[in-house]
Parts: sequence; C-alpha cells; structure tokens
Amino acid sequence: MPKISERAQRMPASPVRKLVPYALLAKQKGIKVFHLNIGQPDIETPETAINAVKNINLKVLEYTLSEGSQDYRTALERYYHTLGHTDLTTNNFIVTNGGSEALHFAISTICDDGDEIIIPEPFYANYNGFTSATNVKIVAVPSTIDSGFALPPVEDFENKITDKTRAILICNPGNPTGYLYTREELQKLAEIALKHDIVIISDEVYREYVYDGKQQVSILSFPELKDHAVVIDSESKRYSMCGARIGFLVTRSKQIRDAAMLFAQARLSPVLLGQIAATAAHQNDSKYIMDVRAEYTKRRNLLVSLLNGIPGVICPKPKGAFYCVAELPVDDTEKFAQWLLEHYSNNNETVMVAPMGGFYSNPDLGKKQVRIAYVLKEDDLKRSVELLADALQKYKLEFKL
Amino acid sequence: MPKISERAQRMPASPVRKLVPYALLAKQKGIKVFHLNIGQPDIETPETAINAVKNINLKVLEYTLSEGSQDYRTALERYYHTLGHTDLTTNNFIVTNGGSEALHFAISTICDDGDEIIIPEPFYANYNGFTSATNVKIVAVPSTIDSGFALPPVEDFENKITDKTRAILICNPGNPTGYLYTREELQKLAEIALKHDIVIISDEVYREYVYDGKQQVSILSFPELKDHAVVIDSESKRYSMCGARIGFLVTRSKQIRDAAMLFAQARLSPVLLGQIAATAAHQNDSKYIMDVRAEYTKRRNLLVSLLNGIPGVICPKPKGAFYCVAELPVDDTEKFAQWLLEHYSNNNETVMVAPMGGFYSNPDLGKKQVRIAYVLKEDDLKRSVELLADALQKYKLEFKL
Repeated sequence: MPKISERAQRMPASPVRKLVPYALLAKQKGIKVFHLNIGQPDIETPETAINAVKNINLKVLEYTLSEGSQDYRTALERYYHTLGHTDLTTNNFIVTNGGSEALHFAISTICDDGDEIIIPEPFYANYNGFTSATNVKIVAVPSTIDSGFALPPVEDFENKITDKTRAILICNPGNPTGYLYTREELQKLAEIALKHDIVIISDEVYREYVYDGKQQVSILSFPELKDHAVVIDSESKRYSMCGARIGFLVTRSKQIRDAAMLFAQARLSPVLLGQIAATAAHQNDSKYIMDVRAEYTKRRNLLVSLLNGIPGVICPKPKGAFYCVAELPVDDTEKFAQWLLEHYSNNNETVMVAPMGGFYSNPDLGKKQVRIAYVLKEDDLKRSVELLADALQKYKLEFKL
Repeated sequence: MPKISERAQRMPASPVRKLVPYALLAKQKGIKVFHLNIGQPDIETPETAINAVKNINLKVLEYTLSEGSQDYRTALERYYHTLGHTDLTTNNFIVTNGGSEALHFAISTICDDGDEIIIPEPFYANYNGFTSATNVKIVAVPSTIDSGFALPPVEDFENKITDKTRAILICNPGNPTGYLYTREELQKLAEIALKHDIVIISDEVYREYVYDGKQQVSILSFPELKDHAVVIDSESKRYSMCGARIGFLVTRSKQIRDAAMLFAQARLSPVLLGQIAATAAHQNDSKYIMDVRAEYTKRRNLLVSLLNGIPGVICPKPKGAFYCVAELPVDDTEKFAQWLLEHYSNNNETVMVAPMGGFYSNPDLGKKQVRIAYVLKEDDLKRSVELLADALQKYKLEFKL
C-alpha cells in the first residue's frame, strides 16, 4: 500500500464528522433531524442573484480572469466604498472559490512550514484544516464563556509572539462565538501587528449580521495597517449562497496581493456562474440585508432566551454572525450529540448540534459546550430547544448525572 | 513589511504571464490578437448544460456534500461504466473545483514536503504550481520533439526513483504535447508503480479528444493498480465549460479516497451550479463529443500541415488533446512571443503563443518551442499561421538570424 502523507494524517476531521453516520441512521429510521449543527441558512438567496443565473445569455462557460471578472470586482469595489473604504479599487480584490480558498491563499502567502498564527479560541474549526494542509501551527489564545468570549487581554497575544509568528487571525463577528470586536480591541491588535511586523488576517464574512444597532468595524478601517491587513470575505453567508462558492481576499498590500495572485493563477479561475450571481446580488441589496438581519435578530433573541431557560444551560448572547455557544449540563457533548441521534427521539424528532471540542486547540476545553446555528425558522428553533430540554432530562436520568 | 512566504516565492509565474501586459497594450493600439496561447476553446458548451442552469428551480443556493452531490456522482458513475470501469460507484469520486483542485488534493494526500513526483517533460506548466505550493519536487524525465514526445524508456523512470518518490504523474493525452500513451507503455508504468509501491496520478481530462480512430487507455484499466492509481478528470475541456469549475478525482483506493476527503471537507463544498450543468451535460452527450472531436480533428490537421509548411518549423502531429508543440527557427521563443505582441502586426492583427520554457523543468529546453492551442475555428487558425509565417520572416530580418 502506498504511504498516505503526514500532511493528510494531520488534517482534522470536521467536528461533526463522527456524527454524520448517526444522523443518516436516524433519518433512515424515519426520525426528523433538526440541523443546528451547520452554517447552512434556510434563508432564501436574493431573487436577483438566482434570476441573473437563470437569464444568462452565454454560449460558452469560459474561464474568467484568475483574480475574478472585471464586472464582479467592480461590484466589490462599489460595495467596499459603501463600507467606507473608498480608496480601494478592483485591484485590491482576488476572487476565490469560497472564503475557504481566500483563507488558504492568505495562509500560503504569509506562512511557511512551521510558522505560527495566533488565533483567539474557540475558533472556526476549519482554520485547523487550512493550517494543517500547509503545516502551519495555530497558537491559541483562550477566551472563555464566562466573559462572553471577549477578546483576551492584548498581553496574552504579545506573550505568544515568537520569531515564527507571521499573523494573528480573527473572525469578526466570530464563528462560533458571535463575538464582535470593538474598535479599541482592534486598535490594540493593530499596534501589536505593526510593532512585530506581522499580518492581521480578519475573517469578516458575517459582517452584515451584527445586531442591536451595532456596526462591525473592519480591520481595513486602520490605514496604518496598509501592508499588514488581509480581509477574508465571502458571499456565502451574506446572501445565503454557500453553494455558489464565491469568496474573496481584500488587501491594500501590493506585495501580498501579487504573491496571492500566484496561487490564484495556479488554479486558473474562480467560478463564472457564482460571480454572475454575486454581481447581481450586490445591486440594491440593502433591503435584503436589513430583512435578513431582522430575521436573524428574532431568531437569536428567541434561541438564546429559550436556551438560558433550560436548567443548567449557559448561553452568552452573541452580538453577530448566526451561531451561539452553549454550555450544557452533560459530561461530554460529543457523547451527548451522538446519543441525541442514536438513542433519542420525541415524536420522531431529534436535533443535531456541533460539539465544541473541534473549535479549541485543546478539545477538552469544549467538552461541555456545543455550537448552535440559528439558521432555522423560529418555529423550528422553538421545537429544537424543546427537544434539547427534554433530551437533557432523559440523558441525565439515563447516565445518572 | 511583513515577510512573504518562501512558498509563494517558489510559485512559478504562468508561462504567458510576462506576455499578458503586452497583449493588453496591443489591444489598446487596436490590434486584434489571435489567442493560440490558452486552452479556452471557442466550442459551445452543450445546450443541455446551459439550459439546466437557466431552468434551476431553487430558492437557496446551498452547499452540496463535500464529495459532490449524489446526482452528479451518479452521472459520473454511469459515465465511467460506459468507459468500461463497471465496478466504480459514486463512492469512488470526489468532485472538485476544477481538475486543478483534484490535482491539489491528490498531491496533498500522497506527498509531504520534499517528496518527489516523476513527470515526463514537457509537462503542463501548472503542475509546477501545485507542487510548489506543497513543496513537492518534480523530477522530470525528458521526452523530445524528434521522437514526437514518445514516452521515454521505462528505465529512465526507474533510474529516477529514490526513497522520496511518491508518484509518477502523467497527462494522457498530453498537454502540451498531445501525446497518447499506448497500453504497453502504461503497462510498463504500472509495473514500476507496483514494484516500488508508488502511485500513478493520471490526468485524463482530454480523454475524449483523441484522433485517427484511436482510443485513450485509462490507468483505471489496470485492476492491479487498485491501490495505486488516481485519475484527475474535469468537465472543463470535455464540455467546453472551463468557467463552471467542475473537476473530480477518481480512485479505487479507499485509503487515498478517505484521506482526500479530509481536504474536501476542509473547503466544505464544490460548486452547486457547475454540478447541475455537468450532470445535464452527461445526458446523451455522445453526439456532442463526436461533433467536437470531428471539429478538433479538422483543426489539428489544418494547423499541423500549415505549420510544417513554414520553412524551419517542426511540429509533430499530436494524437490527442488540442495542443501542439512547434519548434520555430528563432533564437528564443519568449523574446519572439513578446515581439509578436509588442512590435509586430499585419493588417492590424497578430498572434499570441505560449513559449515552452515554462513547460520544462529546465526552461532552456523549451527555448525554441511554442505551444499552440487549436481552440479557434479553421479560418482563424489559417489566418494565425499566415501571421506567424510572415512574422517569422520579419523577425529573422530584424535580428539577422
């Protein structure tokens, strides 16, 4: 048998990977599974985007430029101007196959084998995937549920910086915590980045979904980071078009842009049809975004209040994105999540949640936590929490907790 | 300034990258440029594929499974059964963002830093990109224009095998040479792979476009390579839908499949819309393929005979794909290709060709060669060769060759 690479062996499985077969089995038994485990919203994609695809007038589905079509990057330029970054031009954007590829390009451009990236944890589990593939080490700075996952003190970051550190990676607002960075926090991170000449990679794909009248502050708002900031962005969550696979990388650094372009050219072209859909979505989208934000606000309020109403459950109110992290009164959320699919049902229904182990560098830190995505409509969320509350009681009895 | 990674600095520029600004300048001067430099055919995408996209009845553009949708993999299973590989099931396929990503997954799954892949040269220039990104070393086995780029003797491969060798990568039929491997040649490669327990990665994206009544032999035709063969495939060239970004990886090896899945999961999902287009294209496509093959046959015959009619030009007749490699009577094809765009025009027209330096591990070997893609219709090809012949004369005079 030929050898499988150590690179592949390092790759983490998805946090719900072990659960997927159990979800399948449950469905085969006729049990309805409410999926609170993934960031696939049930929100409709903007009609303008779908119609743009339905109305294509093309004879050949051709490659676009490696950096993305001129049309789409012009739409991005316009969008970023409305965000206040009026110096950006089409040259500051590289269109990618989802935010995933943008992240992959950013890491590949900045890091070599053995280099380190500092990330506040818990963090989006797939960050582990891209760093493993490139043999980059994640150095985690812990944040805790007790403080609502606030950014750890800046000294905690500085203490972790070594001569191998190349970047600080943040997700703002955060997946999985929903945490929203303040301007002051970002300012402090910016100072560290400049002092140590490292890059801030800011994953801002949930930028639009920030609640309670708050506004997300982009890392691009710090002009002094001209050569030190990369934004990861994506249309997947903004327009509920995850399957279109359109993300992009934004940077003012010519050096980083030119280097990232080498990776973009190696894979030839991002997706033509997704760019057409996304270009259309960006036209007159403010009502869409407002409506969706209002919908997520309602869902969040409902979910968080219901969850905190369950005895023993703690769930800080997220300020953005569409996830929350809840601490459950169980021994091990991985075991509990499997039990929910394997042994539990109520009226032929159950729920699937994501155990938080995979969102920490040390999985034990997430042993009592789950990530819950509020991507389902209110009725479904209500029923899901009902099931969760009922299941927690039964689980407690069964395992004598 | 933050450091750019060595990984990025290793990345090769596209063979025509330096030429692109000159092509742009030529166009700005009002000169028509015939693009013989890229594999973007002018052939129409199947109408069924375009219509499938135009007729989508979806409210949400959702993620598909990381390995690709069940529908599309069922279409692939059926297609591979018609190719004679009747034991394959949907589980043997992982759908990717173009053949590029399939290749990236294959290399990542099999190779670690410093590992080696043996490739007959000249080879598809982008192989350099994916190996550079993963820090894998290409060990080239030279083939020459004099023998029509026939596979080098098997001993040449075996001599290159070290304890770092993980795979032999072939492109069949070949980009850029159009070379088609015989069953006997593949048989010998299979024996080497088994003897040394290494993998054969076979890029077969041009499989359908093989001429003169010949048939391509897939590496999957060797059942003994069950654990040692990976096929890279793509819909881009087959259905002239490069912009759909749908490729896939095929293997009978459970071990390789499972490891490649970890990379597929890290980037979440391949493109939904492209899978819809490709699924439709695979229905009743035999007439489409036959028509396109007939068209490429005519183009090849015309192009190769015209090229060989130019004094000093040598161009072996390719057996497949839609490229040929021609040796030109010039000092340096990179200089010549630039001169064509910068200083030459006839009746306000010129041609762009790909210098072959980037297709060799040692660029000097390609100094007198260009790759010409026959992706334009016959009239355009005829005019392009006319321009090339005229340009060669003028270039000779100007530089006193």
